[in-house]
Amino acid sequence: MKSAVVNDHGHPQSVPAVMPTHPERGQEAGLETMCETIRRAIAAANLTPDDITAIGVATPGLMDIKAGLILDPPNLKPWKNVPVRDHIKSVFNKPTAYQNDANAAAYGEFWVGAAQEAKSMVLFTLGTGVGGGIIINDVIIEGEHSHGGELGHLRIDTPDRGRICGCGARGCLEAYASATNVVNRAREEMACWRGPTKLREYYTANDDVFTARVIFDLANGGDELAQKVVDDTAYYLALGACALIATVDPETVVFGGGMVAAGERFRALIEGHVKRLGLPFPTKSVKITFASLGSDAGFIGAAGCARLLVLPKPA
Amino acid sequence: MKSAVVNDHGHPQSVPAVMPTHPERGQEAGLETMCETIRRAIAAANLTPDDITAIGVATPGLMDIKAGLILDPPNLKPWKNVPVRDHIKSVFNKPTAYQNDANAAAYGEFWVGAAQEAKSMVLFTLGTGVGGGIIINDVIIEGEHSHGGELGHLRIDTPDRGRICGCGARGCLEAYASATNVVNRAREEMACWRGPTKLREYYTANDDVFTARVIFDLANGGDELAQKVVDDTAYYLALGACALIATVDPETVVFGGGMVAAGERFRALIEGHVKRLGLPFPTKSVKITFASLGSDAGFIGAAGCARLLVLPKPA
Repeated sequence: MKSAVVNDHGHPQSVPAVMPTHPERGQEAGLETMCETIRRAIAAANLTPDDITAIGVATPGLMDIKAGLILDPPNLKPWKNVPVRDHIKSVFNKPTAYQNDANAAAYGEFWVGAAQEAKSMVLFTLGTGVGGGIIINDVIIEGEHSHGGELGHLRIDTPDRGRICGCGARGCLEAYASATNVVNRAREEMACWRGPTKLREYYTANDDVFTARVIFDLANGGDELAQKVVDDTAYYLALGACALIATVDPETVVFGGGMVAAGERFRALIEGHVKRLGLPFPTKSVKITFASLGSDAGFIGAAGCARLLVLPKPA
Repeated sequence: MKSAVVNDHGHPQSVPAVMPTHPERGQEAGLETMCETIRRAIAAANLTPDDITAIGVATPGLMDIKAGLILDPPNLKPWKNVPVRDHIKSVFNKPTAYQNDANAAAYGEFWVGAAQEAKSMVLFTLGTGVGGGIIINDVIIEGEHSHGGELGHLRIDTPDRGRICGCGARGCLEAYASATNVVNRAREEMACWRGPTKLREYYTANDDVFTARVIFDLANGGDELAQKVVDDTAYYLALGACALIATVDPETVVFGGGMVAAGERFRALIEGHVKRLGLPFPTKSVKITFASLGSDAGFIGAAGCARLLVLPKPA
């Protein structure tokens, strides 16, 4: 768990307080850790709880955003129906916003990050999985069942032929473009690659160091096979972006998470594929950019959601 | 062009006035025809322009919804940058809303049609092409470039293998599920079908009568090949619905247009594929339904958009 005090301009007021979640200790302990992380963040900013206007909390799914509940996400077993929002609200006695973590990161980038000039944006967050968030005119598309912006499960290939995703289905973007699957695809490509490639050194030496980051670095260094894997990744992400262009037609599509480190060459590859494959009229003008808030996007965005609770309504 | 007076409850007050568009006569003539259609609709309802509170106009794309302009849609050549909203507004001196036609149809179904109980909905409109509209909490997702809800151009197969769409790209939903392409697929299936099928009678007798409607009717009558074509259509539409479930996670997905006539068996087929192929949590609860307003959805929805202009804002 990570917590920080963020001011009205979206600036963190100290380094974030971080504590391990330990889901196995149960949800009561988890809620207390959450509160303690918040207290430490306030202290780290040399403030007291009285100085805090509102609190924003973001968690991974499954969740019920409107009800403020963590339901029963596989990564947080044995938690079930955890009343996150109401607990935090009653402990600190502050207006408390609750949001999905990827949605919060998207809101952070929308508010003060890469898409701060945009009226609408879509974020693809690239990590162990592929997450996402959609913001239109300051409104987060939460979805009727709190599953808005589950962009890792957009299909980019057909259910009979696509790669198998962790969700059990075939063809999901996540099965191609998550960090894990970038590595998996690199393994598969190596098996039929006849030319030289530095990728083999990492693969054979120690499987633990064979990461998406290594692949991106080797690609930037000119390794041909690594470049193929990276180019394919850009193509898959572009297909995801094209689906969003045909549905919500955003002003900006932002790519965040680990792959930002892959640099401008990777961004330009995604953009090239989008311009080639997207619906021409909206695609001509859509902006393709990297996230700018790094791993702070989530708590900055959560704070931004809290800010919306107390902001005077426009006339 | 079609126009009708609609009351505050979404009920048309007479049969709609209909006039041919004649785009080839130029856009000045077109705007005058539009005004005349509105005047005839008012007269048909035994009302005078003074009785009208606001006017809603919906047109096909390409358009700039915010600016109230028809840009240069291929079906309306030689029109270019036609100031529809401002013209109607100044001629009738009424608050005037402007919207994409499929978005307006979606709003009609959302307001008083098949999704009137829903807080969020997606409409797929099935005709010569496949259109769409997305409504979330009474807000139409217009898109930054007026291309929100262009659901016919969602890809359901890959750009290298998919069917070729009228837009030039491969894999668009429209290339599979539009009325035209249902017929095209039936032709292709017939070419390799060894069993009996009544489809051949229609195909050989007169190509003009070989319509999607015929295929759906024969499927309902038990023709095996027609059923395959219809089942595949349901599958393709379900893939489109799944993409919307993973992006906006709507409460209801509505299918409108000609294929509504295919009846409950077709709806149930779509639903079955969605339940099988969609992201499990939101898909469990999503409603799959047919549109209920028929070809009135567009003008009812346009009137609904006009109503939003004059409705008191919620406190």
